[in-house]
Amino acid sequence: MAQLNDHYLKLKAGYLFPEIGRRVKAFCDAHPEPAKRLIRCGIGDVTEPLPPAVIAALHQAVEEMARRGTFRGYGPEQGYEFLRTAIAKNDFRDRGLDVADDEIFVSDGSKCDCGNILDVLGAQNRIAISDPVYPVYVDTNVMAGHTGEADESGAYGNLVYLPCTPANGFIPEPPREKVDVIYLCSPNNPTGAAATRDQLVGWVKYALQNQSILLFDAAYESYISDPTVPHSIYEIPGARECAIEFRSFSKNGGFTGTRCAFTVVPKSLLAATSRGEFVPLHPLWQRRTSTKFNGVSYIVQRGAEALYSAEGKAQTRALVEHYMANARVLVAGATKAGLTVHGGINAPYIWVQTPRGFTSWQAFDKILHEANVVITPGAGFGSKGEGYFRISAFNSRANAEEVARRLLALKW
Amino acid sequence: MAQLNDHYLKLKAGYLFPEIGRRVKAFCDAHPEPAKRLIRCGIGDVTEPLPPAVIAALHQAVEEMARRGTFRGYGPEQGYEFLRTAIAKNDFRDRGLDVADDEIFVSDGSKCDCGNILDVLGAQNRIAISDPVYPVYVDTNVMAGHTGEADESGAYGNLVYLPCTPANGFIPEPPREKVDVIYLCSPNNPTGAAATRDQLVGWVKYALQNQSILLFDAAYESYISDPTVPHSIYEIPGARECAIEFRSFSKNGGFTGTRCAFTVVPKSLLAATSRGEFVPLHPLWQRRTSTKFNGVSYIVQRGAEALYSAEGKAQTRALVEHYMANARVLVAGATKAGLTVHGGINAPYIWVQTPRGFTSWQAFDKILHEANVVITPGAGFGSKGEGYFRISAFNSRANAEEVARRLLALKW
Repeated sequence: MAQLNDHYLKLKAGYLFPEIGRRVKAFCDAHPEPAKRLIRCGIGDVTEPLPPAVIAALHQAVEEMARRGTFRGYGPEQGYEFLRTAIAKNDFRDRGLDVADDEIFVSDGSKCDCGNILDVLGAQNRIAISDPVYPVYVDTNVMAGHTGEADESGAYGNLVYLPCTPANGFIPEPPREKVDVIYLCSPNNPTGAAATRDQLVGWVKYALQNQSILLFDAAYESYISDPTVPHSIYEIPGARECAIEFRSFSKNGGFTGTRCAFTVVPKSLLAATSRGEFVPLHPLWQRRTSTKFNGVSYIVQRGAEALYSAEGKAQTRALVEHYMANARVLVAGATKAGLTVHGGINAPYIWVQTPRGFTSWQAFDKILHEANVVITPGAGFGSKGEGYFRISAFNSRANAEEVARRLLALKW
Repeated sequence: MAQLNDHYLKLKAGYLFPEIGRRVKAFCDAHPEPAKRLIRCGIGDVTEPLPPAVIAALHQAVEEMARRGTFRGYGPEQGYEFLRTAIAKNDFRDRGLDVADDEIFVSDGSKCDCGNILDVLGAQNRIAISDPVYPVYVDTNVMAGHTGEADESGAYGNLVYLPCTPANGFIPEPPREKVDVIYLCSPNNPTGAAATRDQLVGWVKYALQNQSILLFDAAYESYISDPTVPHSIYEIPGARECAIEFRSFSKNGGFTGTRCAFTVVPKSLLAATSRGEFVPLHPLWQRRTSTKFNGVSYIVQRGAEALYSAEGKAQTRALVEHYMANARVLVAGATKAGLTVHGGINAPYIWVQTPRGFTSWQAFDKILHEANVVITPGAGFGSKGEGYFRISAFNSRANAEEVARRLLALKW
């Protein structure tokens, strides 16, 4: 008798974004007229077209696939050398960081990587996760059986939650207790906070002392405007011995629908076998990739490579600046509307306190029905997200300005 | 102290294809002149360019990504409706098979799907796997901790191996003992054998009686030439209650480097919770996809859709016929060379017995060094693959003919 993975049955309701999608669809079906003026600032999805340098590279790669002499079949599961080298050189070595080409693993998304990394880690690790947090970190641990049941607030047993509040600037401090694996996301989704160098130094120190691994999600690094904020965990001495870094082309290059990302696994990163021997994790991830993945589409990898050309870099900067100008408009608008606002400086997300005791889903429904704007309820990111909502700056300028106006007009 | 997944340490040597790659590279580095005439019939990788209908669709999709009004960000994790509908209609409903659009899950590869499906299955299942077999089925179960250690022959404890030999036409019969999950691949990689309708009826009957799940890999279904051989497990009554089917565009559409595939999970397929309740697996796979995947590149999905246009279908048929004509050339050549040959009729693989007691890796090295042809050693597919090698028909006609000549010239 075939058994299913029971741990899935512990998962609460829908994954956040499908649930938002369901509510928005129900609203649009019931209110076709207001639906026409709907503006989506919910899911953190880019809105502007791919950079021209990427478009040109994609067309060229498609043409290569049309001719026998240049056609590409299976590629290396870990990514083509041209892309691994471009990444390691531009994102790391040119910035003085020691990362080798074969420590870069090209993938089809950071969401996949954040989940899949658990495959190579043991089942006994004690896991620490910020609260609020990108739901994928929590849900993939539930699925893998690393947690107990959820309580009424949605918090799962066995997970160590690290509260992110105005008091700590939404960046958690290392816990007193020992944990083995820690998820850190900076710049942060959903709060928009970015960890300072000192804060990251504290985390690396903690990880080295406790032989823990930091899973550092830097998907939003290109949005950092403060020159003192680190872009990579490997800017911190010792991080090559304790940290895996996730990066993505989704938000800088606009690849959310094109799909390309990468993970850095340093060869100097060790983890313990159940017999207590320390061995490198790199060969395990290499093996996982070879066995459970066939690499990213050649065409898409050529598109990603083009982000590192001179034109590609300039066009990416322009895209990021476009969204960050939106963030400034939204921060100004929400502030003017009397709301308490965080983030929006080193990240494309604005983290807003709900006024007058509204729960975050109540705020979601009110903003959807009265302002016809889709935001993301903070409670969807964890129990400490209750009382907040996230506004995404991924939009056209006109839409960002209109959202600012509608927030101003909204009576709570 | 962070622990790794110890089960990975049970894995034997390299995954088959990287090991072949290593030996071929060593040969080429040491013998630059013979290396120039090397013909690769090892990894089952297509060689001909993408069909023109796909190229046109890819270019058009790239253009859509270049303009704000048609740009696509995140798509549905399970695949765009346009592709799910095209698949369900053309591959199933038009052939009289009852498969709904939302039972189709579009992915970036069958290799990923075959591995990932274990995520939603329990750890207690007893797993049966053909021998020889596509190594991914075995290795992903090792990684997931479903096996014991490997013995000297490479066979892992706790797995139930189903020997495929000339005596059973390389299609295993259901075992006397109870197993919970069974991998079936038809047409088969590596043996080229295709299961008859009666054989599949026997497996469905077994699965229904034992409440087992069949994982049916039909990646090579378009190569079936015998009209009595089923193309889908859903041609067998009762299969919707016990079978998941994997399909791929890799081998019919030439998508090995473009990456698109799909999995069919019927809503009527149940599996047991640890408390013995039977619940549908479909919502678990839906949830896994939402949480651990972001869908296939929009551009690639448009390319896959084009395979179902009238032109796309004709061009796909021509591609398949090209490779199958190669298969006939190779079967004839190997037979003329005095070798004992199986397969090559309903699959692009020829399964050859090694002569004179050569082991399959010895045959690999001999054919590499003396004929300068890369084949795949049967032992890489399991202990019952020892004494065989696989020749892939994925090549140009000229290469297939040259390989046939070289096999004829080879002295054993």
